[in-house]
Amino acid sequence: MVIGGNAAGMSAASQARKRRGPDDLEIVVFERGHFTSYSSCGIPYWVGGVVNGPQALVTRAPQTFRDEYAIDVRLGREVTGIDLGRREVVVGDTRERFDQLVYAPGATPVRPDWAGGDIAGVFGVQTLDDGAALTGWLERPLTHAVVVGGGYIGVEMAEALVRRGLVVTLVEKLPEPMSTVDPDMGALVREAIIGLGIDVLTGVTVTALEEQDGRVRAVVTDAGPLPADVVVLGLGVRPNSDLARAAGLPVGRTGGVLTDLRMRVTDGVWAAGDCVETVHRVSGRPVYVPLGTHANKQGRVAGINIGGGYATFPGVVGTAVTKVCDLEVGRTGLLERDAEAAGFSFVTATVRSTNRAGYFPGAEKMAIKLIAERKTGLLLGAQIVGRNEAAKRVDALAIALWHGSTVEEMTALDLGYAPPYAPVWDPVLIAARKAAEAVEADQR
Amino acid sequence: MVIGGNAAGMSAASQARKRRGPDDLEIVVFERGHFTSYSSCGIPYWVGGVVNGPQALVTRAPQTFRDEYAIDVRLGREVTGIDLGRREVVVGDTRERFDQLVYAPGATPVRPDWAGGDIAGVFGVQTLDDGAALTGWLERPLTHAVVVGGGYIGVEMAEALVRRGLVVTLVEKLPEPMSTVDPDMGALVREAIIGLGIDVLTGVTVTALEEQDGRVRAVVTDAGPLPADVVVLGLGVRPNSDLARAAGLPVGRTGGVLTDLRMRVTDGVWAAGDCVETVHRVSGRPVYVPLGTHANKQGRVAGINIGGGYATFPGVVGTAVTKVCDLEVGRTGLLERDAEAAGFSFVTATVRSTNRAGYFPGAEKMAIKLIAERKTGLLLGAQIVGRNEAAKRVDALAIALWHGSTVEEMTALDLGYAPPYAPVWDPVLIAARKAAEAVEADQR
Repeated sequence: MVIGGNAAGMSAASQARKRRGPDDLEIVVFERGHFTSYSSCGIPYWVGGVVNGPQALVTRAPQTFRDEYAIDVRLGREVTGIDLGRREVVVGDTRERFDQLVYAPGATPVRPDWAGGDIAGVFGVQTLDDGAALTGWLERPLTHAVVVGGGYIGVEMAEALVRRGLVVTLVEKLPEPMSTVDPDMGALVREAIIGLGIDVLTGVTVTALEEQDGRVRAVVTDAGPLPADVVVLGLGVRPNSDLARAAGLPVGRTGGVLTDLRMRVTDGVWAAGDCVETVHRVSGRPVYVPLGTHANKQGRVAGINIGGGYATFPGVVGTAVTKVCDLEVGRTGLLERDAEAAGFSFVTATVRSTNRAGYFPGAEKMAIKLIAERKTGLLLGAQIVGRNEAAKRVDALAIALWHGSTVEEMTALDLGYAPPYAPVWDPVLIAARKAAEAVEADQR
Repeated sequence: MVIGGNAAGMSAASQARKRRGPDDLEIVVFERGHFTSYSSCGIPYWVGGVVNGPQALVTRAPQTFRDEYAIDVRLGREVTGIDLGRREVVVGDTRERFDQLVYAPGATPVRPDWAGGDIAGVFGVQTLDDGAALTGWLERPLTHAVVVGGGYIGVEMAEALVRRGLVVTLVEKLPEPMSTVDPDMGALVREAIIGLGIDVLTGVTVTALEEQDGRVRAVVTDAGPLPADVVVLGLGVRPNSDLARAAGLPVGRTGGVLTDLRMRVTDGVWAAGDCVETVHRVSGRPVYVPLGTHANKQGRVAGINIGGGYATFPGVVGTAVTKVCDLEVGRTGLLERDAEAAGFSFVTATVRSTNRAGYFPGAEKMAIKLIAERKTGLLLGAQIVGRNEAAKRVDALAIALWHGSTVEEMTALDLGYAPPYAPVWDPVLIAARKAAEAVEADQR
């Protein structure tokens, strides 16, 4: 039995089915929403009119799971209790028995107290149902939008709302937007956001909402009120772990459900996706990183194990990429503040290079920042801001990080070179050289 | 003293200078050509009119080295002998003494016997002087071009010549062009080459040239004659190691000069760049891989060591990328034939995915092929053919290879995901999954 029909839950169900046929294993999925297995990350592009929605964002529809996988998907059915002793879940007025349970109800957008009321026009963006509610609201004649929170979702949503012709203000309480990179790199992102015609207010805290006739009218901040016909919350999400906690399942300090390497919570109970806590391979610390890519992997791992195979999810290194208009942002590992919090001493090196040979048409600037441990030179984190084939270069750095490379070792890496793709010294190698020099200089 | 003023030689000179000032170390560079420190890889783009040349391809001009680095660059001066006993080199009628020697004369395009004569209109493409000779020849009114050899240079040159309005035939003796990837991937490249309007003849061997008034008129093949007003040789290059061999320096079975990890040949003699043999980290075998990226690194390593530092060049994994019109090709590690030759038993997995989420505008198909060792699942090689941000993804695979990853381990890698960059299952992860399944299935 599976609670939650999105990435993690359906990956688990599909993988279990691959290894155990319908005669051997009955699979029932309870999904409280109206969609299965979809791309939450695609919602900003749907709202912005870049892609169609919601159906185009659905990877596999419920009927596909029923017909091709013999998985009994039940939509609009919310599980409200888990009785581990009786091996039952409570769904509405009924109880349903399970042998194996996959807990994958995902996450919910953070709603601060000031957004806690029942004011219309205030939206979190996590599920396709959220997306449908927001796009429905945007059918009205609206002028002003305020996005609260300048992380990935906030910036992506601000861009989407500008594309729809709204006057958009992005409010972030930190000094720079895109706080998923260090402030020096965030400053580069700020320029791109402003370039889109978005008003960026940083160092500003929201304190309340103003309403009129039950609809939002303004966002009140410590820098004054901002007119708002629609408010989008980009303050992150919190794991839906209440149900698990109530059932006596262990929940970590990040708020995510605790699992072992095989995504097992306890005997016959598994968890995966945006509801679980995982471990950061660089800091060794528990982290909560709700991303579709992890949800899919964790679900697959749980499903393989339920199906009688063996698979593990060995943690994350914090890789993420995003795009702001044509500006690309990639990151992996620890930021400076993360490295400090984890007790590392480190040096940093930032280089500016290009995505192609300098003489090649379309060469665009790219900044790469590396963070390396003092003395050892171990790579701790990397950030890239650039255009045109910049962000995904972070994958190379993520793999170097995964394998515990030092920046010195990285100077020797054999990366692809041709004029349309890189200068003869690849930006990653230039960054590694500069970081290695910083490590060496620091020891003298 | 440095023999050769391109990537390897000038990197060595610059690095040595960084660590040892002009009072401590006099640096003289003998370059037989007329340029220093340039991008050979840019020549096809110069010929094709995509970039300007030759000056735009020069990273640092001789005068810059003289003025800013106090490096005495002497152009048009060919070293014709090395006297190790006396620590002297022969340059024209004079002898010049050295304490430390960097041997970096590069490589020469392979000229088969049939191209051995003095027929005008036949060009190899390695140095900027070669490029100048070819572009000079192309100023004439010409109609037909034949490119012999369908590797990177051959295909890039064929595209360049089509851009200049010539009728181009590409002749390759193997069954598919781009033999730097396996034939199944090469077949995808063939389509793109044909799409450019290039006539592709594979399985065809050139036997002779026909001339008229000392100018080439046709290329004679075992499939008949091909009219040719210009012939470009894309048959690879051979290391310029004759001078080293004559001096008694060790030369490997690939024809490249032998060095240790620090690029040292013997006491006080160093070698770097397209004239040296290196080691393939996957096969453990000696290989000859003349690429600017290695030349720069090896030169830098030699220079650091000469300067009193410590640096090593720990071999290559065979990474390379190229572009054919908008088709991108990347490879790393061993091809199937390399893996066989090295005695590996292996399985392969090829997947077709996209560079962006399937629903995202601009999503383009991408094929990834992985080669993994039987039983262990160790990654042995990877190839990518696609469009738009496809080829450089091979860097991630190159680093996984560098670190001795198994394809099973790779299924857990934390790669960047967002709809503009990848499906939620990154193509690299999908390929790793399929390869891991192939390894598992093979063991049953």
